[in-house]
Amino acid sequence: MPKNQQILLDNRPTGEATASNFKLVTTDTPALEEGQVLVRHHFMSLDPYMRGRMNDAKSYAAPQPLGQVMQGGTVGEVVESRNAKYAVGDKVVGFGGWQEYSVVNADQVGALRKVDTTHVPLSHYLGAVGMPGVTAWYGLVKIIEPKAGQTVVVSAATGAVGSAFGALAKARGCRAVGIAGGPEKCKYAVDELGFDVCIDYRQHKDAASLSKALKDACPDGIDGYFENVGGMVLDAVLTRMNAFGRIALCGMIAGYDGQPLPMAYPQLLLTNRLMIQGFIVSEHMEVWPEALKELGMLVGTGKLRPRESVAQGLAAAPEAFLGLLKGKNFGKQVVKLI
Amino acid sequence: MPKNQQILLDNRPTGEATASNFKLVTTDTPALEEGQVLVRHHFMSLDPYMRGRMNDAKSYAAPQPLGQVMQGGTVGEVVESRNAKYAVGDKVVGFGGWQEYSVVNADQVGALRKVDTTHVPLSHYLGAVGMPGVTAWYGLVKIIEPKAGQTVVVSAATGAVGSAFGALAKARGCRAVGIAGGPEKCKYAVDELGFDVCIDYRQHKDAASLSKALKDACPDGIDGYFENVGGMVLDAVLTRMNAFGRIALCGMIAGYDGQPLPMAYPQLLLTNRLMIQGFIVSEHMEVWPEALKELGMLVGTGKLRPRESVAQGLAAAPEAFLGLLKGKNFGKQVVKLI
Repeated sequence: MPKNQQILLDNRPTGEATASNFKLVTTDTPALEEGQVLVRHHFMSLDPYMRGRMNDAKSYAAPQPLGQVMQGGTVGEVVESRNAKYAVGDKVVGFGGWQEYSVVNADQVGALRKVDTTHVPLSHYLGAVGMPGVTAWYGLVKIIEPKAGQTVVVSAATGAVGSAFGALAKARGCRAVGIAGGPEKCKYAVDELGFDVCIDYRQHKDAASLSKALKDACPDGIDGYFENVGGMVLDAVLTRMNAFGRIALCGMIAGYDGQPLPMAYPQLLLTNRLMIQGFIVSEHMEVWPEALKELGMLVGTGKLRPRESVAQGLAAAPEAFLGLLKGKNFGKQVVKLI
Repeated sequence: MPKNQQILLDNRPTGEATASNFKLVTTDTPALEEGQVLVRHHFMSLDPYMRGRMNDAKSYAAPQPLGQVMQGGTVGEVVESRNAKYAVGDKVVGFGGWQEYSVVNADQVGALRKVDTTHVPLSHYLGAVGMPGVTAWYGLVKIIEPKAGQTVVVSAATGAVGSAFGALAKARGCRAVGIAGGPEKCKYAVDELGFDVCIDYRQHKDAASLSKALKDACPDGIDGYFENVGGMVLDAVLTRMNAFGRIALCGMIAGYDGQPLPMAYPQLLLTNRLMIQGFIVSEHMEVWPEALKELGMLVGTGKLRPRESVAQGLAAAPEAFLGLLKGKNFGKQVVKLI
């Protein structure tokens, strides 16, 4: 059996997460039982939600257990099988965690999914044609429900969720406005991702300044907003929402280290009759087939060309993850393992 | 023609509203044109939303114009008619404003509605069987959508909206928990309005303390919340909301004087996948017939026994209104004019 490198959560962060919260270990892969397969991971996914699970706080998901392999999405190849439905060489998406190999009870619902890499590169099943893409799809289609011609805005626009959101919004005839950090990301959002405009939030010291930039970028106001960030960005967007606007609340990365992140003017929710809906895409499995079909088509036809930040090797995962939390990634953050 | 006493908005408040913002004048009632009726107001309604309109700020409704009669709901009797559909003696609900008489273009849609006072006292058409009652109905039925056995909470529980909310929630088999100011109101909420529990927010200095009281009052958590107040009360309720909870946002009286009213932990919207929806009942006229029918039945059968604070005479309106904004009223605030 091959040796398996793993990264465990060694201790919980107090405030900002650091590399010392993690621990790299090497173990043996166990022999397979009937029904199991051994997957060699080609890529593993790093996602902002993982930071929330590192805390021992009440949230939608149970905390990441201490001393165990960091949980997360993976794509790879079946290298050994004791399950009739899977053959050696099958490409699969799963939730294998921060390690090189995983043993999977492949009959468990949702544990493993075979994917076709003819038109879609394997790693994209962790991003645009995976959980982040479906997240964008659910927020746009099921919560914001935009009409053609309306203006929709997304924060973290060049990330895995944001870039899918832009392509999905353009496919529906919307004006798509992104918010991202830095001129390079903003240029990419417009030139490559198809956003009509992208605002560099780093040019703005406070919500009032960002609000002015949004006014220019959204001359007809904002009808829908997809929130990944929270804090100042949300405050600014709220001042530009049109009556009956709808907000899909998916992440508040600005508050993951536990700092307070108050919403300055909730009165705007009332005066503009806004709706805000928090959601977790894993609770809406019923939409995944429809969403993945559209996302696969967009990627396969080149209408969505997602960018990736690729860290090399398992040991690079903690630093890449901490960088993601600071917005240092550019596109979907993955770790390449082979 | 009778003389008509009126109260005008003389100048806009800076911060807290005061009696000096208003001005009492006496005018003549004009001769009727074809299609018009002259209504003598028996009662006029004082409502928190009027404070918002006194500001010259962007909001859902145009600001109350300066130098003109304060706008507001009224009930009264037709005393002169040049409209075939209305006869002298008809009891009517309208939007006559802070004055003793109004001349109404009775053919205009929504301007006037005849009401039956056999089972429902006339003044209640300004409260439980009027705009406040329908507001409670819309928030509960269309936004919160509770199931029998769920727990719903309302702030300002003994007010016109809150008391209707309690009766409507009990009629649907919910646990109804009120929040009100002072032991007398809380006792009334339980003894007369049928709330299961009522919490006196004045006993609590901060959101953490109120949150503890809510934990006791809502052992199964909170599934739906109807917000009239904002600020500390909303912060406390958010900490006790169950996953997938729904919040109808109807008023934020705590912020009407322009003070900041931040929401401390919007992250809770995400972690508990909550939905907040701001709304204005006048934008949902399609539900009024159904809502008024149920509310009329509840009042007619004694299942909803709304209490009123009655100020006497037009000149008493400004002080009664300012008292309402401070929670000095006990039940629906009206002004009796004859």
